[in-house]
Amino acid sequence: MEQIRASRYGLQVGTLPPGPRDKITDVPGVTVGHCTIDTDTHKTGVTVLFPCGENPFVHKLPAAAFVLNGYGKSAGLVQIQELGTLESPIALTNTLNVGKVHDALVGYLAERCEEEGIELRSVNPVVCECNDATLNDICRRAVEERHVRAAMEAAGTDFDEGDVGAGKGMVCHDLKGGIGSASRLMEVDGQTYTLGVLVLANHGNLRDLTIGGRHIGPTLAQMLEVGQTEDQGSCIAIVATDLPLDARQLERVAKRVSVGLARLGSYIGHGSGEVFLAFSTANPYDHRVQEKLRTVTAFREDAMDLPFQAAAECAEEAVLNCLFTARTVTGWTGKTVRALTDLLSLERESRQRELSSLGRESRQRELSSLEREFP
Amino acid sequence: MEQIRASRYGLQVGTLPPGPRDKITDVPGVTVGHCTIDTDTHKTGVTVLFPCGENPFVHKLPAAAFVLNGYGKSAGLVQIQELGTLESPIALTNTLNVGKVHDALVGYLAERCEEEGIELRSVNPVVCECNDATLNDICRRAVEERHVRAAMEAAGTDFDEGDVGAGKGMVCHDLKGGIGSASRLMEVDGQTYTLGVLVLANHGNLRDLTIGGRHIGPTLAQMLEVGQTEDQGSCIAIVATDLPLDARQLERVAKRVSVGLARLGSYIGHGSGEVFLAFSTANPYDHRVQEKLRTVTAFREDAMDLPFQAAAECAEEAVLNCLFTARTVTGWTGKTVRALTDLLSLERESRQRELSSLGRESRQRELSSLEREFP
Amino acid sequence: MEQIRASRYGLQVGTLPPGPRDKITDVPGVTVGHCTIDTDTHKTGVTVLFPCGENPFVHKLPAAAFVLNGYGKSAGLVQIQELGTLESPIALTNTLNVGKVHDALVGYLAERCEEEGIELRSVNPVVCECNDATLNDICRRAVEERHVRAAMEAAGTDFDEGDVGAGKGMVCHDLKGGIGSASRLMEVDGQTYTLGVLVLANHGNLRDLTIGGRHIGPTLAQMLEVGQTEDQGSCIAIVATDLPLDARQLERVAKRVSVGLARLGSYIGHGSGEVFLAFSTANPYDHRVQEKLRTVTAFREDAMDLPFQAAAECAEEAVLNCLFTARTVTGWTGKTVRALTDLLSLERESRQRELSSLGRESRQRELSSLEREFP
Amino acid sequence: MEQIRASRYGLQVGTLPPGPRDKITDVPGVTVGHCTIDTDTHKTGVTVLFPCGENPFVHKLPAAAFVLNGYGKSAGLVQIQELGTLESPIALTNTLNVGKVHDALVGYLAERCEEEGIELRSVNPVVCECNDATLNDICRRAVEERHVRAAMEAAGTDFDEGDVGAGKGMVCHDLKGGIGSASRLMEVDGQTYTLGVLVLANHGNLRDLTIGGRHIGPTLAQMLEVGQTEDQGSCIAIVATDLPLDARQLERVAKRVSVGLARLGSYIGHGSGEVFLAFSTANPYDHRVQEKLRTVTAFREDAMDLPFQAAAECAEEAVLNCLFTARTVTGWTGKTVRALTDLLSLERESRQRELSSLGRESRQRELSSLEREFP
Repeated sequence: MEQIRASRYGLQVGTLPPGPRDKITDVPGVTVGHCTIDTDTHKTGVTVLFPCGENPFVHKLPAAAFVLNGYGKSAGLVQIQELGTLESPIALTNTLNVGKVHDALVGYLAERCEEEGIELRSVNPVVCECNDATLNDICRRAVEERHVRAAMEAAGTDFDEGDVGAGKGMVCHDLKGGIGSASRLMEVDGQTYTLGVLVLANHGNLRDLTIGGRHIGPTLAQMLEVGQTEDQGSCIAIVATDLPLDARQLERVAKRVSVGLARLGSYIGHGSGEVFLAFSTANPYDHRVQEKLRTVTAFREDAMDLPFQAAAECAEEAVLNCLFTARTVTGWTGKTVRALTDLLSLERESRQRELSSLGRESRQRELSSLEREFP
Repeated sequence: MEQIRASRYGLQVGTLPPGPRDKITDVPGVTVGHCTIDTDTHKTGVTVLFPCGENPFVHKLPAAAFVLNGYGKSAGLVQIQELGTLESPIALTNTLNVGKVHDALVGYLAERCEEEGIELRSVNPVVCECNDATLNDICRRAVEERHVRAAMEAAGTDFDEGDVGAGKGMVCHDLKGGIGSASRLMEVDGQTYTLGVLVLANHGNLRDLTIGGRHIGPTLAQMLEVGQTEDQGSCIAIVATDLPLDARQLERVAKRVSVGLARLGSYIGHGSGEVFLAFSTANPYDHRVQEKLRTVTAFREDAMDLPFQAAAECAEEAVLNCLFTARTVTGWTGKTVRALTDLLSLERESRQRELSSLGRESRQRELSSLEREFP
Repeated sequence: MEQIRASRYGLQVGTLPPGPRDKITDVPGVTVGHCTIDTDTHKTGVTVLFPCGENPFVHKLPAAAFVLNGYGKSAGLVQIQELGTLESPIALTNTLNVGKVHDALVGYLAERCEEEGIELRSVNPVVCECNDATLNDICRRAVEERHVRAAMEAAGTDFDEGDVGAGKGMVCHDLKGGIGSASRLMEVDGQTYTLGVLVLANHGNLRDLTIGGRHIGPTLAQMLEVGQTEDQGSCIAIVATDLPLDARQLERVAKRVSVGLARLGSYIGHGSGEVFLAFSTANPYDHRVQEKLRTVTAFREDAMDLPFQAAAECAEEAVLNCLFTARTVTGWTGKTVRALTDLLSLERESRQRELSSLGRESRQRELSSLEREFP
Repeated sequence: MEQIRASRYGLQVGTLPPGPRDKITDVPGVTVGHCTIDTDTHKTGVTVLFPCGENPFVHKLPAAAFVLNGYGKSAGLVQIQELGTLESPIALTNTLNVGKVHDALVGYLAERCEEEGIELRSVNPVVCECNDATLNDICRRAVEERHVRAAMEAAGTDFDEGDVGAGKGMVCHDLKGGIGSASRLMEVDGQTYTLGVLVLANHGNLRDLTIGGRHIGPTLAQMLEVGQTEDQGSCIAIVATDLPLDARQLERVAKRVSVGLARLGSYIGHGSGEVFLAFSTANPYDHRVQEKLRTVTAFREDAMDLPFQAAAECAEEAVLNCLFTARTVTGWTGKTVRALTDLLSLERESRQRELSSLGRESRQRELSSLEREFP
């Protein structure tokens, strides 16, 4: 089933054009898969992103990690920060499942390398996490190796957003959060490059939510009778691009994810672990090649505003896509977290008023489509 | 002459109450002074902030620096990051004047310590900068020691905002920028504490400007016939508080300045040196005291959202205060940078329409005051 | 069986006095336990350090992490660096077992908190690792939850060094490495404080080995017929102290571990993940206490040379203790890594000549004790 | 007059071969010049290093800064850390002269760019410093713009070491310190590359001094009747190479300077500002070139041990060269700091005994040369 994303509501974030899918998988080679666990006690799961079709252990990609607020348990950042390379799929899951998912990645990579006749003695799995304890019985660590393998098998260029995979139990701006993605195209020296973002969005207050430049949060909060809450979730963002950026430049790009989040009203709460990874699919590195010098393509530093803008726009839209695609979920303790769209349907009158002012430029809105989407 | 600040236009940023002056000098002990250089070739100056009334070299204050985008030449950060203390007044000036102002701070501190019979062999002056080359003949480094001394002598709890001191030649969101400030009060265990921010605002595009949650930039850009520009300015922010935060906590607080900037539309451009300092006036340290252990007051980590919110609100309002108080300035090459208020006066019709929707809550707007301010 | 440590060979590192056990457990509250896995295919294990007798999740201790060379997979550093607190036991294990051991720590803490009626939704387990693939079939991840629990149950103030626990398969300076520890006493304002270090030593070349200021490596290398090797191991160090240092100060102390390593000849090889953690048992933090202000004891910054010296001396001696206590081990592929002492016994003549010049000051050597130890 | 350097005393540091001059200027394009101020009250000066023959503002070189201990006032690091480029000569001077020297660099670059028709609105001068207050009346900031210009004019591929330029008043291991340098050649894919280090050495205790693997400090301390002192100096090191390393790799290389210092007995004292810069002359960047993509040469990450070893060896030898070339200096307050060689001459008997064991391998010592040098 096709999901209704932000653009269908007339929301156009920024000025750069999106890629064909408007997802991180518009970056050639990137695939994403989910495994969702949806039981009485568990609303959780795992999402796996493959940075390339090759074995990442011998096709290491330039990468960087930026920790905006380190109240988090992500694993694998230390080596990325030192060596500037990614050599593993990236897995997203819930906070207390990092260990099991980490072990599953080791198992997968050891197995794959053995099959391919590649010696593996050490590898750096990357596992990022947000806390879904509001909806999920997190202490029981429901995500097993088989779920990680299932997510890997499901990986492709198309993937769902919203309350799926690692996003099943996440809460964003007091609404149902989870997975979201977006992409932007960039013209560079006559060629087109792509930058995409995938978020696991579990951060923010409803009060502060600002959509399309409109501070819609207080109105929605009134509808939900939500009081002042703490921003104690977390937000993970993965940035992928085929632009040939090196690790230092990728760290600069990763920082700009924060701009997209802030424009939606995030204020980087104390309890919100905000960790951003970025990688480029250009200039891969195979540690088995013995030649010490090689030729790579470098990107002009003074043109960095282009990927910065792309990252900020993608991050903002990715969270919006998450909010617009996630569905209402009731958790193991009976607590229900409402979907944004569910809320918007509550009162047609109200909805039309709100939505009709969401778009940045009114001429781009198609109210008629709303009629179709919210019968 | 009293300046007309953002609140007078009905703009209320956030939910925490401002201090009596709504400036960084609401934090007890903090004083600020300017020396403005306004000649045919020079639109520049220096602003000095004293963190306390005592000699800061022997009344060192907990401090931290956070570099969001290090395209800048600020001096003194290395030692603050290592030792977590501030032992100097903080001077703000233009990019190429950092050396002269640095030397002037050394001269001042050496002289003061000599007068007070305090041995000084080494001291860490702090000089932050933005680039005012658009309006100022920056290569000639107009700011001399005497200007620094004049700014020091002018220091007090009241000080002007806008195109004054180091802010004389600054440009913010393609409008006239410069100095701005704001403060917030925080209730903690039955006592009231203050956090204040001072910005030297020289960053941002007009296109992205968002005031009071309203994306006003494109309209203003149309009025000014401003095309797409690069965010190549910089923004310096100083956060002061009497809340007893340690250096690590102060770094976390400094980071939240970025939230305020992003809400106004800043996207941390490649060329925008964004450097944030934070210090607490609590728990001073005198290196002459030989006892190795002392008692200090510590702030609960899980209550950090309070100073985070205060810093974000102050930063947003400080930039607004800067934009609303700065006046149109024509620079040495004949280029004119328009003030926001000047622009707003261009068309009364337009102005009323825009301003009437600026405030977050319309019931708090006093349109009548606008009539008085813009006759 | 009592182990023969460096001091018994007349080696006295530095000038500060050691604590009664000369181990990290001289810091009150700290306990250490091992579980060693010694099978045909596995030479590995896990070592657990409890930072205090209390539940660390509600008795959080000031802590810091310093990454000297981030070619490593340690988990839990991000949150320590942000919040400056340790809320978990610290586990050491082999590189590919990080995930399983991480999950075991979550299980332990969730269980313990449930028993004690403490809500736990999120916790930051700390797992550090070195690579023991030379002696251990690392890809099979032999360390299970039960081994972690066994190490916990074995934890006490006395513990073995050398080829035990996580140290079973480690190689240090091309000799058998593993676990080592040392402590130093510091007089501060009339009171005695303790600093201790625990290392998991898996780093260094034999060629560079320098013991007691004597460059003994080349001679030993000749005996072993060891050629030039790469420093591809890693070294983890944990620093504990009851001196009231805050997180920033602890990071500075952690850095000084590198001095001890360098004095033994380490050169921070590309492949050597060198990660140092430090924590203080003073000023614990319980997140359940709602008061926002509390009184803590602070240590004078200008007296930091004392804990710096203690950390450097402990680190050097801890590695020495590891080298002197570890026994020769033959790994799963048949490769044997010789113990330093084994090597020294090879030729009595040679041994006496070498050892007799090991001590920093010859008058402190007791050759007669050597006779007893090496019959 | 040719200076007698460490190698002439039979000291051979490490295993890589030195370049023809065994100085940082063996890296093609690098030049160094001094201006020494030697008056009754001033023992100070300035040393300028040009990273290349071209105007560095438009021939920006990959660069990195690593702060091992940030008790220092170096200026220019923030931008290097963000952009990974060096665009200025590097000046070394005394702590309180940073401002004046900074301004002199701005003046030089503005003038040079104007002459060459290059627009300059902003530039990042790099000034590093150590504290020479023991011998120099530091508060009076004797180094003026003309001294900086004189050092620039004196710059060449040959330059003196010891108590010259910025090194005039420095103290290292309680002996006369100052400027030292060394270089190493590296074979890479059949080509020879060079790495060189320049130090401004003002750090360390005599007690801890270890030369050629021999702990000579206590003996020298006894001769000088030096008690326990604090390591409160600082050490600046600049690493240059023509190996094509990027900024991230250069930061890793800069870190290894610490290995060389530690092998001589430095323990990174609290008061010792240790700041290491590294740059590569390969892959220069001209910000005026508008093409966004270009081809550069990259160095294999897993071969980094080669430049690491070179940096460690150069750093150790550079400090040795400083110690062996510096002459005894009496400062403004009458205090005399003895040269190492002066001390070694005190007692011929003693000298021969000590020196005869300095070299790492006795067969490489030329005692006869000692006879010539110390008649």
